Amino acid sequence: MKIAIVQQNYTVGDFGKNATKISKAIFDARQQNADLIVFPEMSVCGSFPKDLLKIEDFEETTMQTLQRIATESFGTAVLIGCPTYCEDEKETKLYNSAILIENGVITRRFNKKNLSLTESKYFLTDKEKNVFEWKNQKIAVCVGDDCPDNDEKITLAINITCRRFKHKSKKDFKQFSDCHYPVLSVNQIGGNTDCIYEGNSFILNSEGKLIVNLPYFKEDFFIFDTEKDYEPIDNQDVDTTALLHDALILGIQDYFQKNGFKTATLGLSGGIDSAVVVALAAEALGSENIRVLLLPSEYSTSHSITDAEGLAQNLSIQYDIVPIKDIYNTALKSLSPLFGDMPFSVAEENLQARIRGLLLMAVSNKFGNILLNTSNKSEVAVGYGTLYGDTNGSISVLGDVYKTDVFNLARYINRDHEIIPINTIIKPPSAELHPGQQDSDSLPDYDTLDKILFEYIENEKDENALLQMGFDKSIIEKTLRLVKRCEFKRVQLCPALAVSIKPFYEREIPLISKF
Amino acid sequence: MKIAIVQQNYTVGDFGKNATKISKAIFDARQQNADLIVFPEMSVCGSFPKDLLKIEDFEETTMQTLQRIATESFGTAVLIGCPTYCEDEKETKLYNSAILIENGVITRRFNKKNLSLTESKYFLTDKEKNVFEWKNQKIAVCVGDDCPDNDEKITLAINITCRRFKHKSKKDFKQFSDCHYPVLSVNQIGGNTDCIYEGNSFILNSEGKLIVNLPYFKEDFFIFDTEKDYEPIDNQDVDTTALLHDALILGIQDYFQKNGFKTATLGLSGGIDSAVVVALAAEALGSENIRVLLLPSEYSTSHSITDAEGLAQNLSIQYDIVPIKDIYNTALKSLSPLFGDMPFSVAEENLQARIRGLLLMAVSNKFGNILLNTSNKSEVAVGYGTLYGDTNGSISVLGDVYKTDVFNLARYINRDHEIIPINTIIKPPSAELHPGQQDSDSLPDYDTLDKILFEYIENEKDENALLQMGFDKSIIEKTLRLVKRCEFKRVQLCPALAVSIKPFYEREIPLISKF
Repeated sequence: MKIAIVQQNYTVGDFGKNATKISKAIFDARQQNADLIVFPEMSVCGSFPKDLLKIEDFEETTMQTLQRIATESFGTAVLIGCPTYCEDEKETKLYNSAILIENGVITRRFNKKNLSLTESKYFLTDKEKNVFEWKNQKIAVCVGDDCPDNDEKITLAINITCRRFKHKSKKDFKQFSDCHYPVLSVNQIGGNTDCIYEGNSFILNSEGKLIVNLPYFKEDFFIFDTEKDYEPIDNQDVDTTALLHDALILGIQDYFQKNGFKTATLGLSGGIDSAVVVALAAEALGSENIRVLLLPSEYSTSHSITDAEGLAQNLSIQYDIVPIKDIYNTALKSLSPLFGDMPFSVAEENLQARIRGLLLMAVSNKFGNILLNTSNKSEVAVGYGTLYGDTNGSISVLGDVYKTDVFNLARYINRDHEIIPINTIIKPPSAELHPGQQDSDSLPDYDTLDKILFEYIENEKDENALLQMGFDKSIIEKTLRLVKRCEFKRVQLCPALAVSIKPFYEREIPLISKF
Repeated sequence: MKIAIVQQNYTVGDFGKNATKISKAIFDARQQNADLIVFPEMSVCGSFPKDLLKIEDFEETTMQTLQRIATESFGTAVLIGCPTYCEDEKETKLYNSAILIENGVITRRFNKKNLSLTESKYFLTDKEKNVFEWKNQKIAVCVGDDCPDNDEKITLAINITCRRFKHKSKKDFKQFSDCHYPVLSVNQIGGNTDCIYEGNSFILNSEGKLIVNLPYFKEDFFIFDTEKDYEPIDNQDVDTTALLHDALILGIQDYFQKNGFKTATLGLSGGIDSAVVVALAAEALGSENIRVLLLPSEYSTSHSITDAEGLAQNLSIQYDIVPIKDIYNTALKSLSPLFGDMPFSVAEENLQARIRGLLLMAVSNKFGNILLNTSNKSEVAVGYGTLYGDTNGSISVLGDVYKTDVFNLARYINRDHEIIPINTIIKPPSAELHPGQQDSDSLPDYDTLDKILFEYIENEKDENALLQMGFDKSIIEKTLRLVKRCEFKRVQLCPALAVSIKPFYEREIPLISKF
């Protein structure tokens, strides 16, 4: 028996396009004599539709599209993910299902059991056994993180899923550790605002060894022959920075393409964050679609401007230099009846950042370029950035990437030749909002900061646990204090491409709390 | 038997303050010979703590505080809400419980059964019967929206809850419609960032008639004597605008007080939204704690300035006039190498709004005043406002109030004498970003718009249902198109005081969708 696994990129609610893509794969797989063709979880409607699932018309279009796909499936069988009505309930609820289509007719459905909290807002769980017999095989079907049902006679399991990329998280196949039969796991790829499905669909043999490994972040297709023997794949070392890079590229591409956007803008400061964002954006969207601004102030060092110009030239992107000094001085003059001779403070620092944000938005509005946000996760965590200035943007490219990983990305981008000027990578990070300012004036050094933040945010360690890990008490206290007091900034941020184990949108901290 | 119901305002994580408040009420009620003293759901730790519930130290402090409260309870009994450990589970989960303390000793707990989706992230449900016998009474205890358990011999039910205010929603007591015995329902009051608990604790007699009704938005206290007869309360007509007004006042007060903030700033445009916000803020925080800016542009009409000045004078608040013309012209000059002779567009309109936002934030940063956002729900719904300009602010006062209700609030504020200049109320709304501009140039009139928005957002009616209700097809289509295309703005807004049936934070629409 031949089973095709199809790894594809869908758009939420773009039923026509999704169906065409699915039909094309059915056609191709049937040409290659596939008996069963498997598509990921939530293929028909795209993932994740959130409250669109509450709209009757959305579910009806899903059903019509499923019917259309069924009629394209003559002469073969298809297993495909989509939400389906739960008929028994008075309340209109849904299941997150895998649908079996045999020779053009929908014959079975298998419903997801372990729902995430978000899913449980829309879906019901089901206790039915998800096993069916097919051409002398007894096949277990499981959706998402579900384990295949226990059944002694199972000969094969098929998992359809939507698994997002998580930088540095290890794949352990634990979900299938009880399986004494081959397992096929089919995943979506694609960016969906913040969420990036990673692909990397795989097949395990009956000993749980990896025998097929589809690529990350690319559509692909594999026909598995149950009669054939496959060699286990050696555990290759994966370059995690390369994966992170590719995830971000796909995230940018799909954010633009699925939104119908074409061109982007951002400000180049000469620093590493904006350098990495523009390099990623140029690769994702094409240099010709990027227009950047250099927005020097009187506190900008000359190397900041030359580094930023060098970068723009290396990438062959359009850039303009718009000094902010005149606007800054005019604003201060307008405010002078209020400010009098009060000393320079955070108000003046933030004013510069907000003038930059205002100019970038003016260019964005005038020319229709989408503003890319350049904040990184370390900054977002400790609130090191000006609200309505540095935090502006339609999508944050690095908002879920720690500063130390931004450096890794910069070196990776420069792997073949210097794109990002080396000076940008080696100089001490600075916001350049007052003379001689460096990030290290107000923050712990990024190596330490990122380690503490990682343990605190991704691993949910508390202060005591961090102390026991050997971090300095005063640095822990300072870091946690900073994180706790800037929740008000995080709630106003644009979405960030989610690439970590614990993106900020999964943290829910009350804005008001004395704890 | 005498039962005291205690309606109080708590702060999340402020265990010391919450406990002191609770102990004081126990002392007072015992003085008045109360046999049982009832406090609302989640009193000990405040509501809602979100991910703080995942911190071991938070739960342990809750338990210690509960013990402290228990030791203050000698000579009486207390029923009080707080999260408690669920001992049987390996995974550390919690119950949302009502704890019975008898004579200083914790003797029973009753756990919430129907959890909201948010709660189910932290709490387990329980199937145990929540009934206990006490001084010849058989008492059912239920938490939140739970109905009292069925039991023929129940003589009294006690409901402890955290119910937020919802403008114009009718109280129907449906939850207790099966109760043939008195019901005591005890609610929190208080603002907690966006959420405002309304108080209005009540007692129903055994015929389901309302006999006791504590005030909205105020701490209060009532001792119910099971031996006594109480007259049913006539169904009074409630002034819904007055309630909305009081909810917003409490929301502002608690946002500031619980955050440790004292002074506020905002921009007065001469329009109705900022006028209502400043009047509410002056009442909530005191005129002496408000400092406003008038930020006229060359497109501002003279009456806008005089109306705004009149308002500031009526309220006796400090105001400064900072014209934005110079900054605007300097910014345009700086951008002229890029903009050339391209015609005036939304870029220039937004530039003005962003200069205002930038000046307000400069004053906020310089003097430590918290910026109040002045957008209303109708604007937020259709995206009629400039991101990083009009949308700036720490808390949005009217972001969950439709424009037509903003007018009602203005008239209510003026009920005794003219605070908001009448011209502000009667003139056609305008953003004044280009000459002669009016909101009605780009939006349906607010009466129609608000009706459509209310049905679409609060009642979740779709396009077909709206058509059947008799709204004009082209206006429906325009409105829905506007709502759908500005999801990207809503995700970056500050929290808004939630006063409607369906605040935007409860709507989850994917940013990318072709549907």
